[in-house]
Amino acid sequence: MSIPNDHPSHALFDSSYLRACRLQEVEQVPVWFQRQAGRSLPEYRNIRGTGSILDTIANPSLAAEITLQPVRRYGVDAAILFSDIVVPVNAIGFNVDVVPGIGPTVDQPFRDKTDLKRLRVLEPEVDTSYVLATVEILAEELEVPLIGFAGAPFTIASYLIEGQPSRNHARTKSLMHSEPRVWHDLMERLSDIAIASMRSQILAGASAVQLFDSWAGALSAGDYRNYVFPHSQRVFSELEDLEVPRAHFGVGTGELLSLMSEAGADVVGADWRVPIDEVRHRVGSDTAVQGNLDPSICLAEWPVVERQAREVLKAADGQPGHIFNLGHGVLPETDPAILENLVELIHTEGLQLASSGP
Amino acid sequence: MSIPNDHPSHALFDSSYLRACRLQEVEQVPVWFQRQAGRSLPEYRNIRGTGSILDTIANPSLAAEITLQPVRRYGVDAAILFSDIVVPVNAIGFNVDVVPGIGPTVDQPFRDKTDLKRLRVLEPEVDTSYVLATVEILAEELEVPLIGFAGAPFTIASYLIEGQPSRNHARTKSLMHSEPRVWHDLMERLSDIAIASMRSQILAGASAVQLFDSWAGALSAGDYRNYVFPHSQRVFSELEDLEVPRAHFGVGTGELLSLMSEAGADVVGADWRVPIDEVRHRVGSDTAVQGNLDPSICLAEWPVVERQAREVLKAADGQPGHIFNLGHGVLPETDPAILENLVELIHTEGLQLASSGP
Repeated sequence: MSIPNDHPSHALFDSSYLRACRLQEVEQVPVWFQRQAGRSLPEYRNIRGTGSILDTIANPSLAAEITLQPVRRYGVDAAILFSDIVVPVNAIGFNVDVVPGIGPTVDQPFRDKTDLKRLRVLEPEVDTSYVLATVEILAEELEVPLIGFAGAPFTIASYLIEGQPSRNHARTKSLMHSEPRVWHDLMERLSDIAIASMRSQILAGASAVQLFDSWAGALSAGDYRNYVFPHSQRVFSELEDLEVPRAHFGVGTGELLSLMSEAGADVVGADWRVPIDEVRHRVGSDTAVQGNLDPSICLAEWPVVERQAREVLKAADGQPGHIFNLGHGVLPETDPAILENLVELIHTEGLQLASSGP
Repeated sequence: MSIPNDHPSHALFDSSYLRACRLQEVEQVPVWFQRQAGRSLPEYRNIRGTGSILDTIANPSLAAEITLQPVRRYGVDAAILFSDIVVPVNAIGFNVDVVPGIGPTVDQPFRDKTDLKRLRVLEPEVDTSYVLATVEILAEELEVPLIGFAGAPFTIASYLIEGQPSRNHARTKSLMHSEPRVWHDLMERLSDIAIASMRSQILAGASAVQLFDSWAGALSAGDYRNYVFPHSQRVFSELEDLEVPRAHFGVGTGELLSLMSEAGADVVGADWRVPIDEVRHRVGSDTAVQGNLDPSICLAEWPVVERQAREVLKAADGQPGHIFNLGHGVLPETDPAILENLVELIHTEGLQLASSGP
C-alpha cells in the first residue's frame, strides 16, 4: 500500500524538509525545532488554558492551532503535530497523566506479565480519532510538511514501568534482563501501537513521521541491540510501504547512532554531544541527519546562539541530507525572538557557508 | 615535593588497586564501588542519624567508620573517603546544603563576577580540618588504599550556578559562553580549591585521588575542550609531584574520554554506555580504566548481575590496568548481598576469564 494521490506529501514533495530527508539538494537548509509548539510561545500560553495537556490534545481545532503557531511565527520548514507520546497508551486505558513540571505519570505502573492484558491493540480511528481530526485540519492548512510521531517502544515502556520520568530506568532494565519474555511481549505490543498510530497519522495527512526514543541513550549498545533494536526495526519496516520519511531520535545516543540508523530510519536526529559531521559518519551515507544545536544555548544571548549555530552549519558543511534542529526540545524559558533569528540565520547562511568555505 | 616515607602509599604500593592504576599486572582484578559507603548499607543507616550529611562528614570518627563499613562488609580493594564534593566550597562560606532526595542546593547561586569574591582560597588545615582528621584515622586503620577526591571545577561550577542539580545546565552553559572571562576566573578559583583539597588529603594519608566531573558529559567535546579541559588539566598537573594515582570520572562522557585522559589522569572511569575495551581504546594505552557495570543492573537478581559483570570482565580481557567498578554510584535501593557476590565474582573470575578465552 502507498499513500493516495491526493496526499499532501505529493504536493510538498519538493519542499526543503522532504528533499533533505531524501538526501537531495536544497536551496535552503530546512529547519524546525523539536517542541517548537508549546510553552515557550506567548500565543500558546494565551490559548492553552489550565486543564490537562491531554484535554488540549483531544481538542482538534485547538491542537491544530497550537501546531500552526510556530510555523506562522518562525517560518520553520516543517510542522510537528501537537500531541504527546503517551496519547495512544492512555487512549487504550493504561491511565497515564502528564503532570506539569514532572512529565508522564502512571497510577498503576506495569509490573509483570499480568499487566500485558492492559495493552490492547490500538484502533486509531476509534481511540485517537481526535488526533486524526487534527492531522486532517493541518493537512488542509499547512504549506509545509506535517511530521507525525510516536513514542518508541523502549521509551514508552520506561514510562509505563517506572510510573514517572526516571533518571536511571532501573526497574525497566531490571524487567528487561530478568524477564526477557515479558519484556519482548511488552515491546511487541508497544510496537504495534506505535505502528498503528503512525500509519493512521500518515494516512490522515502527515508527510513524515518521527519515532521518539528519547531515553534509549540510557542503554549500552549491547542492551539496545538485544532488547530494543528488533522492535524499533519492525516499527520502521511496517511503515516502509507508505513511502514517507521516517526519522529516529533520542538523547545521549552517541554510542547508538549506527544502530538507530540500521533500524531503518531515513533520518537520524542527535543531540549536541556528537558534532553533526561525526553523526553523519556514524549513521552512514544513505541516512539524513537532523540537529543539533544545544537547546540550553538558546537561553544565552543572540551572539552566543549565532556562533554555536554557525558551528553546526560548518560541521554539516552544506552536504545534502541535513535538517537543522535543536539537539533536544525547545526549553520553556526560551525567548521566541532567539528562535526567529535562528531560522533566519539558517535560511540565509545555511548553504553559503559551505560554498564559501576554505 | 613528594609524599613522606611513612606515607601509607609506600606500604600499600603493591596493593592490587595501586598496581592496576599503574597498569601493572595483578593477581586479582581490583574492585571498589563508587558510593560504596552510604545509604545502601543498613549499618550506615543505623549510625547516620538524621541531621545534614555535612554534619556527619564533619565528625571524623563517624565519617571514618562510614568509610570503613563497605571495606569490612565487601572486602573491596579500596576505600573512598566518606565526604561530599561540595564540602570545600561550603567550608569557605559559599553556603551549600545537601538536601536528601534532591542533592546540593545553594541559597544564593553564583550569578556574575561580583560573586567571585565569595570564593576565597581554601586552607584545608583550617577550613576542612575534620576531613584531614578523618583521613588520618583511616590511614591508620585501613589495609587497602584510601581514595581521596574532589569535585571537578565544571561540576562544582554547575552546582554553584544552577543552585541545584540540573538536567540541562542551561545557566552554566549560558555563563560559559556569554561571559568567558568570568567563567575562566570561576574555574580557576574552583581548580585552586580542588587542588588544595586533594593535596591535603594525600598528605594526610590518601593513597590516590579521584576528580569527579560527574556532569561534564552534558557538554559537547568542543565546549569541554575550550571551557573545562585547561582547568582540569591544571588540577592534575599540580598533583603530579605527589606521585599518587589520579583518577578522572564523569557520566555520559563517551565523546570526552580521550580528552579526560589527555587532561593528565592516570585512570579514567566511564559509565556503562561504552564497553570497557572501547574505553581503553579511547583513553589510550598508558591510562588505566575503571568501570563499568550499570548500577541499575544491581537492582536485578543475581544471575542478571552476574551475567552483566562477566560481560565487563570479558571486555576488559584480563589486560593490566582495569579496576572493576560501577559506571556510576551505588543506588540507595541496592541489596548489599548483590555487591558482596559481585566482589567475590570479580576476585575469583577476574583473570581466569582472560586466560580461558578463545
